[in-house]
This record gives sequence, C-alpha cells and structure tokens, in this order.
Amino acid sequence: MSTVGAGIPEPPREDPNSAWLSADELEWTRARLPLLYVEAVPVRVDGLGVVTHVGVLLRANEAGEMTRTLVSGRVMYGETVRDALFRHLEKDLGPMAFPLLPASPVPFQVAEYFPIPGLSAYVDERQHAVSLAYVVPVSGTCEPRQDALEITWVTPAEASSPAFHAEMEGGRGTLLRAALASVGVLG
Amino acid sequence: MSTVGAGIPEPPREDPNSAWLSADELEWTRARLPLLYVEAVPVRVDGLGVVTHVGVLLRANEAGEMTRTLVSGRVMYGETVRDALFRHLEKDLGPMAFPLLPASPVPFQVAEYFPIPGLSAYVDERQHAVSLAYVVPVSGTCEPRQDALEITWVTPAEASSPAFHAEMEGGRGTLLRAALASVGVLG
Amino acid sequence: MSTVGAGIPEPPREDPNSAWLSADELEWTRARLPLLYVEAVPVRVDGLGVVTHVGVLLRANEAGEMTRTLVSGRVMYGETVRDALFRHLEKDLGPMAFPLLPASPVPFQVAEYFPIPGLSAYVDERQHAVSLAYVVPVSGTCEPRQDALEITWVTPAEASSPAFHAEMEGGRGTLLRAALASVGVLG
Amino acid sequence: MSTVGAGIPEPPREDPNSAWLSADELEWTRARLPLLYVEAVPVRVDGLGVVTHVGVLLRANEAGEMTRTLVSGRVMYGETVRDALFRHLEKDLGPMAFPLLPASPVPFQVAEYFPIPGLSAYVDERQHAVSLAYVVPVSGTCEPRQDALEITWVTPAEASSPAFHAEMEGGRGTLLRAALASVGVLG
Repeated sequence: MSTVGAGIPEPPREDPNSAWLSADELEWTRARLPLLYVEAVPVRVDGLGVVTHVGVLLRANEAGEMTRTLVSGRVMYGETVRDALFRHLEKDLGPMAFPLLPASPVPFQVAEYFPIPGLSAYVDERQHAVSLAYVVPVSGTCEPRQDALEITWVTPAEASSPAFHAEMEGGRGTLLRAALASVGVLG
Repeated sequence: MSTVGAGIPEPPREDPNSAWLSADELEWTRARLPLLYVEAVPVRVDGLGVVTHVGVLLRANEAGEMTRTLVSGRVMYGETVRDALFRHLEKDLGPMAFPLLPASPVPFQVAEYFPIPGLSAYVDERQHAVSLAYVVPVSGTCEPRQDALEITWVTPAEASSPAFHAEMEGGRGTLLRAALASVGVLG
Repeated sequence: MSTVGAGIPEPPREDPNSAWLSADELEWTRARLPLLYVEAVPVRVDGLGVVTHVGVLLRANEAGEMTRTLVSGRVMYGETVRDALFRHLEKDLGPMAFPLLPASPVPFQVAEYFPIPGLSAYVDERQHAVSLAYVVPVSGTCEPRQDALEITWVTPAEASSPAFHAEMEGGRGTLLRAALASVGVLG
Repeated sequence: MSTVGAGIPEPPREDPNSAWLSADELEWTRARLPLLYVEAVPVRVDGLGVVTHVGVLLRANEAGEMTRTLVSGRVMYGETVRDALFRHLEKDLGPMAFPLLPASPVPFQVAEYFPIPGLSAYVDERQHAVSLAYVVPVSGTCEPRQDALEITWVTPAEASSPAFHAEMEGGRGTLLRAALASVGVLG
C-alpha cells in the first residue's frame, strides 16, 4: 500500500467523504490537534424556567469504574454545534427526551481538557479537547442508551455539594457547578 | 515510501511532537475535522470601559483582493484558548498592543465557518472552522505584522453600518456587529 | 389631611401593603429613582432551538401614533424578576402564549432609558428606567391584550433591517438587534 | 405642615433636583419599590487575564458584627449603571484602585435580595433590591474608605471554600461563587 505523497495521511478506507475517522486516524489526530466537543447539562425546569433538577449520567469508564459524567461528544466535520448537541443528547438520553436547545449558541462555559493535569480544571487522558458546554432543559422521558447506564436526577443543592463534585470524572464537578451558577441555582 | 500501517497517517517529519502540522497534514485535517479557532475584535475603551473605537484589519486575501477582517487564528495542540488568543493578538497587532484579555473565557459568540455558504452566516472556503470570538481592549500601540497590512480604528457607529459590513470577508461583518451588540454599542 | 412628618410621603390610601403605587406616588418616584423594568423579545424557534421568527408589538403610544415595541413592564415590590417577566408576557401576549422562560436569570442586555436623549441608546420621556432584557421562546398562541393592538411575527432578516429599526419606539430597534445578535441570527 | 395634595409625597427639602433621597424618603421607597443596585467583585488578573486573586471587604454591619461583603451600592436617578459601578468602586476601594470596567454592560449575575429569606439565595433585611453584579479587574492600590475596614485578597481556591462562603453576609457567598464560575476559576 502506498501513500499519495510524503506526509499525506491515508484516506479513510470505506467512505472517503465520511465525517467519521477510523480508530487509527482518530489516534493520530488526538496527538496533534485540539478536538472540538459539546457537553450538556440536562435539567428539569418549573413553569417559570427555574431549574429544579439536574441530570447526571452514571457510566462505567474504560477502567471499569463507575463515574458520574455529563452528556458529551465530538463535533463532526460539516456538523453545526447545535446539530452535534442534539445528536449527543439523543445518544445519551434517548429519543424521547425532547431537549429544548438554547436559542443562544454561546456556551455557559468553555471547558479545556488536557491529557496532563494542572493546565486547567479539566483532564482527559486521551486528548486535548475543547468543549462548549450548555444547560439544556428536557421535557420528555430520558432513557440512557449506549454506554450510559443510568441517568440520575438530583436537586441543585445535591449537585452543588463537594461530595457529588468528587464523584465526577475529569473535573466535570467544576463544570457542573459552573452550570448551576450560570442558571442561578448554585448552592 | 511506505506508511507505518494501513490508515495510519505519516508522522510529521521534523519534530514528532510539534503542535504544528505540515501543509499536507493540515490539508488532510481540514477535510475531516472542524478546526478550532479564536477571533478577537480589538477595541479602545474610555475610563469607564465604554468602547470608543473598534480595530479592523485590512488584509490582502489569497486572490489578492483587499478585505477587512478580524484578528484570528488556530488553537494549537496543548495550547489554552487564552494562550492562542494572546499569540494571535501579538501576531496581528504587534508586541506593543498590550491586550487586556477578558477574565471570562466565555466568548461573546461562537462563529461556525463552513466551506459551503448557507449553513451559517460564516464562510471559509478552506475548511470547517469553529471560532470562539472575544472583544479585547488594547491599551498600547498596534503595529500590524505579517500579512495584515494595516489596522483601522473606526467608531462603533461606522462599524455598525451596512457598507462596512459588506467589506468584511467570510461573514465577519455579522460577527463584528455581534461584538458591538455584546458591548452595548451597536448603532 | 396631615403627614406623619416633614418629607415623609403619604402612604397609599387603599392598601398600605400594595406593591402598586398610586398615580401621584408613581410620578414622585419617577422623578427620583431609576425604575426596574423587564423586557422580552418573544421568538419562535425550530426543533434545534434556532430562532425562526421574532414577535414585535404594534401599539398606539400616548400621542396616538402607531409604534412598534417589545413586551415590557415594571418589576413590583416583592416580585422576582422571573415573576415580573412572566406577568408581562401574559399581559402582552395573552394566557395561551406558553412562554419558555430562560433557565439563566442573566439578561442578554441591560437597557438604560433616560428622559433626555444622548445618555444612552434608549429614551423614555417619562422616567429613568433600567431594563433587563430577555429573549423568550413562546410555544403557544399569542393574542395581545390591553393596549397592544397586534403582534407581528417577522423573520430575523426583516427584524435586522434599518427600516424596521426606525419604526421602533425609544431606541428599541437597538435592543431588538442586540437580541438577534445574542441568539446568533442578526442579519 | 400641609401636603400638596392627597397621596403626593413631600418633595425633598433642600434640593428638589437631588438624586439623593432623605432618610424618610428612602424608608418610604424601600417599602414600595425594588431598588436597583450594582455590585462588584474586584479581582487581580495575570498577563493573560486569568484571575489570580479576589478582593473581599471586611465590614462591621449594623449589629456591630464583622462580616465579609462585596463592593456594592445604589444606582442613583440619572446615573448610568457604569457610573454607579465606578462610583462605588472608588468609594469602597479608594481613588487609586484603577478599576478596569468591563466593556460589556451585561452582569455575570442578577442577585435579587428580599427582606424575607427563602424567596431567593439573597437576603437584605432593609429592602427588596435587585443587584447587577460584575467582576472588575483592578490594577492599582486598594485602600478601603468609609465603612469598609479592610480589603482582603484571597485566591480563587480560598474564595471557593464553604467556610469562606459562610462568612459572607446576605448570601453573597453564593454571588461570589457565581463570580468565580463566570471567570472559570471556581474551585
């Protein structure tokens, strides 16, 4: 097998126009570029828009440990941030969650994940990722799919506690607290 | 020449840890991933923080035409958004501009550039780029370097005009107006 | 009738605990204090949260002229900003509008109205008012009540035009454009 | 002594155009209207705009107890929010603090203080006050004046702690944490 020229990566094998990278390509990319992610904090709101509950995912990480996390995922080539947000909400909460995406595309926070701790509040051993994070009210029924085992709904007070903070992976306790602050319910 | 394995891109030739991509690698990446950018609207403020002037770059684009644009550039692997913002401000405005980066990492707008018009207000023929845009007061002397020919300081009223809007490349007139709105001076 | 002491205003006559001021009391207050207002830009959004239409009220002002305006009104004593926002949305759009109040209490803009032009972009001949302005998606049917004659739904492009801007009272064209910018649809 | 008419409050005695209310007038107003306040969290930033220290005031309250608080004060009739913010920063931090007011007039949070606890996170026994809160970098020397006894500079980590939170009056620990979250440094 040959390459087209020096330094040109191999094209994807099956669909040259696919927005999806092969495992090898993703590994290559992760070592060279910051990847763009979206994250969502699903919430329940009352009739006046006040956040009453916050949804947190329980998930087994690659080491088999149970950790709490948020809805999150990569933005694909050609995909809008809004489309990516909707896709990952559906992937993690199921098709009946009925998320109400915010009218504003401005995130409540930009979370920068680095493979090495200390550069920011957020760590992702796999990669440098920059994540646009949104609070998203959901009005329907959430049934986690894929690798998320369960969604837990907690009150803002519970979600504000240091104990809860400590259970979240990659520094997302900080992100969750920033989410609560942005909607005025950080305890 | 051979590849290390099927689908594995060639490593960069000179510095395997470089955050910089070769031209070929960049081209490959641009066809497969959204690239993360930062953009800045440099402003002059008065003693109360009110924006009095807005800095816009005059630059020759690849077709040799003069267009107006904003400070902008890519976020590198391992670099924080803030570092990238500072680096590009220095690159475009010179080392004596003394930018006062915002305390908040939340951009005033997320601009999504697609190669094909119509998906959003922003177009970049080269790539899918997602840009975090900030208003940045500068207190020093601006001397454009590199490919920026000139920086022009205009009032918010001038910058708000449809005529000015039309002179800006890639839809950045819309981004400039959003910047003015975010600081309360859109005419 | 006597006063309790020099400089002490008369108490309200009918209900001493009423949050509502008499006409005289309101006039007195308007000459001495900035009044707190809320304003809302009602919008229609699509399934991904993108603003597709903007609602603007047509109203006869005190001089009998037809002007375009936004949902707006005073925050009463003891009332939360959110309650006031809901109350004025219901007053201006009717009980079936079903507004989805934002989870975040932070306005997209703070509009400062002064009796004298030139201090800011906003003018209110009656008073100094400071208005917290929000973009509010509505999912139901809007039927203006009270003094609003009609609600008109226009596209973001129409609402962005200078002509439309000029028809709005008190500088609210500027506020409307800031609203459009905040949700990424300013033309 | 007579009143001008039933229900018309007495005009101020000394300067009928004064934006300042007499003690009686202020008391009357506090029982009938929400008062507009500004609050500021003064911060020190590094060369990249990252918040390194947060300034908190130590003050004796009316009961003679020492409490921690933020820069705060009322917006006067005819005064812009920005002017009020500058005035109160100078009042509380002295004339050499050199605050860098934000270019954006949008607060990081709207804090609603009610005389009765439970309506919101914030309590002010004297009144219903709505406060627009800003993070303000200061570059000079702070020397508290008036009733503020001392300004203490703490790190974001210290300011994030529950113990620190508990020392602040009127719920301002919540506001301080929201400030830290808004600039990405809540611990």
